[in-house]
Amino acid sequence: MKFEALEKVGAMSLLSPWGQNMHLPAGIFHWSGRAKAEAEINGTIGTAKGKAQQVFGAGGNKNVTMALPSMKKYIPNLDPEQIFPYAPDKGLPAFSSAWRNWILRKAGEDARALDPLLGQCQVTPGITGGLHNTLKMFVGPGDPVVVPDKRWENYDNIIEINIGAKPVEFPFFTGDRFNIDGMCDAIRSVWKQQDRAILVLNFPNNPTGYSPPRVEADAIKKSLLELTASGDKWLVVIFDDAYEGYVYDSDAANRSLFYEMLPQKGLVTIKLDGISKEMLWYGGRIGTITMAYPADWVNAVGRDALDKEWGNKFAGISRSTYSNCSMLAQSVAAAALQDLDQILEERKVCTGILAERYRIFKEELKKIDTSRLQCNPFQGGFFNFFDIVPKNGPAAEDLADHLLKKYKTGTIPVHFGSLNGIRVAFCSVEAEDIPKLCENLNNAAKDLMP
Amino acid sequence: MKFEALEKVGAMSLLSPWGQNMHLPAGIFHWSGRAKAEAEINGTIGTAKGKAQQVFGAGGNKNVTMALPSMKKYIPNLDPEQIFPYAPDKGLPAFSSAWRNWILRKAGEDARALDPLLGQCQVTPGITGGLHNTLKMFVGPGDPVVVPDKRWENYDNIIEINIGAKPVEFPFFTGDRFNIDGMCDAIRSVWKQQDRAILVLNFPNNPTGYSPPRVEADAIKKSLLELTASGDKWLVVIFDDAYEGYVYDSDAANRSLFYEMLPQKGLVTIKLDGISKEMLWYGGRIGTITMAYPADWVNAVGRDALDKEWGNKFAGISRSTYSNCSMLAQSVAAAALQDLDQILEERKVCTGILAERYRIFKEELKKIDTSRLQCNPFQGGFFNFFDIVPKNGPAAEDLADHLLKKYKTGTIPVHFGSLNGIRVAFCSVEAEDIPKLCENLNNAAKDLMP
Repeated sequence: MKFEALEKVGAMSLLSPWGQNMHLPAGIFHWSGRAKAEAEINGTIGTAKGKAQQVFGAGGNKNVTMALPSMKKYIPNLDPEQIFPYAPDKGLPAFSSAWRNWILRKAGEDARALDPLLGQCQVTPGITGGLHNTLKMFVGPGDPVVVPDKRWENYDNIIEINIGAKPVEFPFFTGDRFNIDGMCDAIRSVWKQQDRAILVLNFPNNPTGYSPPRVEADAIKKSLLELTASGDKWLVVIFDDAYEGYVYDSDAANRSLFYEMLPQKGLVTIKLDGISKEMLWYGGRIGTITMAYPADWVNAVGRDALDKEWGNKFAGISRSTYSNCSMLAQSVAAAALQDLDQILEERKVCTGILAERYRIFKEELKKIDTSRLQCNPFQGGFFNFFDIVPKNGPAAEDLADHLLKKYKTGTIPVHFGSLNGIRVAFCSVEAEDIPKLCENLNNAAKDLMP
Repeated sequence: MKFEALEKVGAMSLLSPWGQNMHLPAGIFHWSGRAKAEAEINGTIGTAKGKAQQVFGAGGNKNVTMALPSMKKYIPNLDPEQIFPYAPDKGLPAFSSAWRNWILRKAGEDARALDPLLGQCQVTPGITGGLHNTLKMFVGPGDPVVVPDKRWENYDNIIEINIGAKPVEFPFFTGDRFNIDGMCDAIRSVWKQQDRAILVLNFPNNPTGYSPPRVEADAIKKSLLELTASGDKWLVVIFDDAYEGYVYDSDAANRSLFYEMLPQKGLVTIKLDGISKEMLWYGGRIGTITMAYPADWVNAVGRDALDKEWGNKFAGISRSTYSNCSMLAQSVAAAALQDLDQILEERKVCTGILAERYRIFKEELKKIDTSRLQCNPFQGGFFNFFDIVPKNGPAAEDLADHLLKKYKTGTIPVHFGSLNGIRVAFCSVEAEDIPKLCENLNNAAKDLMP
């Protein structure tokens, strides 16, 4: 495939050498697609198919994918064709278009402006797959990736260990606010070396649960639009929206910052989603990559050409890494997404439980001496995060070990770069245990920081 | 993690620089594992959990993973914990140990010798995931990978496009037999440049369906054992066993060549499996990587140490690429594998249908003029493959196009390297259509090669 549209709008120069070369050769899928439309005898499909009567002992001459009753019996309410065949490498169309509708619905009044710029959703194995595929597309060994110091530890596995790229970090907080200046400085420092910068933002944040208040979301938007206004340099912002919608404070932005800013010359925005949290199916391994194209790209070559060429590149990664994603999970999610109101109603049960824990946690935090353990500001998400305050305080691992041994309380120590603290997953702690949890945190801190 | 066992046995020197560096840092999984065993209050789990009564409106105080009824309703017969949580990054233990048992069962009498050398099964997203992870572990940009000229086209996507490595090909056939000498020559040519060679073998082969007769399987084994007997150079043989068990000729080897040879100093063997064909769940995206360790490795450091260190490396890939594989598919497969006899009985229905098509195809091949289209020898698999015989014959794409347009018959043209032919998926063509299919192949060939 020739990437003429991507060349024309200058997008190829944003990619890593690996991303520039990545493609899915026209091959099996081209010919099986044609055969589906043109053939009476189709010898292109690499899945065993036969008459339902022969395969399942019922169903007559209907042509079905062969499957084992021992497997099918666990999933009685779906048609075998929704379970057993391969999904397309870009994703099941019913799922990816339903997800795009869901994104537009969350856009609310902004959907009208966003829709013409919003690309197709590329299906990935969870948000990890989305991060891996997107980051590899844009950064190669040694390349910088701008990230906050407080970030999901798996970013470093992907960026450093897998890709060999380099996290360029800025402090997440300035006081109790997101550090906009620090973010912009880090981007500028990258631009001194090269013409493109990649930034990953994640709200509600893992590990802190921080979600910017609405006014702050507006300030972040303004800063990024100003920074890129000249169009001389490029910024690619990857929004890791794993926890979108899990916000328990009415002042905080309840939707992704992705919606706050339209892309422009100099600014490409990419939204990464997962059904893991949004539809509460962690083990389904389904996520999406959705790009918003600058208007001048769309004007120059049309959205279809951009979708086709980006789609080929992402399908190339998919095909050469894991081929495609769970058919069943996509089928189920696509079916459920047909009634979004119902899903949102059901999710309220879960967010309600989490919001109660959040309120209790906020209250019980008062028990904890902030000269030892300082809880970071949080308004949402699944976790909160405690800095170990004294510079000469214990290593986070020692505190976590002590919490386990003496107080039978499990936490995750986070200790890398300039961070030394512990992450607490209130998403999985019952409300009635939170007072005791906070007491244990305070006592354990006191034991090790007398 | 320190890879002391892999260093000691010399395995690290077999890996690509990327593979040497790949690892999963002790982190969340270490601490959540400890918390599971030691904690009363567990704030390590990053999945939302709550009381069944609150989440589902029934089930009392039982602690469950929060999920949406709109999703659950499609999968009524499994416990939510078998569906919604993350699976471990190495795979669900129930599935990976069931798959190891399945491998040993296929070993028959050889299981006793194999068992002590057979590593843990690492779960991957299908065989593509297995190939990607294994090849990246062993080869980097520019490195050679020995493969036959007749091979699955996706090998080239993984080897060349994704990794930037180099397929070193040998002709699959010599006459109507597998080209053992060609394979050995290709390995030796690699050994002239470096001390290690990587070979991928795939029987029943895609695209030809070739499965070596038993005597030939024995000859292949002998040649590989002799080639590596000195132990001066290393050979890593990756067995792509996607189609294992789909053999319709009683003279052909019905099990993987993996079983025919135990590893030895100089020879590591790796078995790649998938539930895609073996359990007829293509869209489940579950496969396995299973290594057989040379006996002197096991004697030197013990199998547990090897499992632990390889496991960490493969978990590192998993975590930084797609995190983990479908929980549901692993749960269902693990449950079904509890009754292997039943699965094998059910699969006989499918292999029986395919074997009937195979017999008809063999018969109907007589209709096809072999001066134009020569069907390659085949004893199993899902496909067969026709070489376009005349050197000045049409390009495979033109024949496939003509077959579609004039005869409404869909086939996959294969045209790269020295190959020019078409692949026919008899796995998806009904028995009664095969005579017409062969007639169409012959007529189309005659049209373009008068």
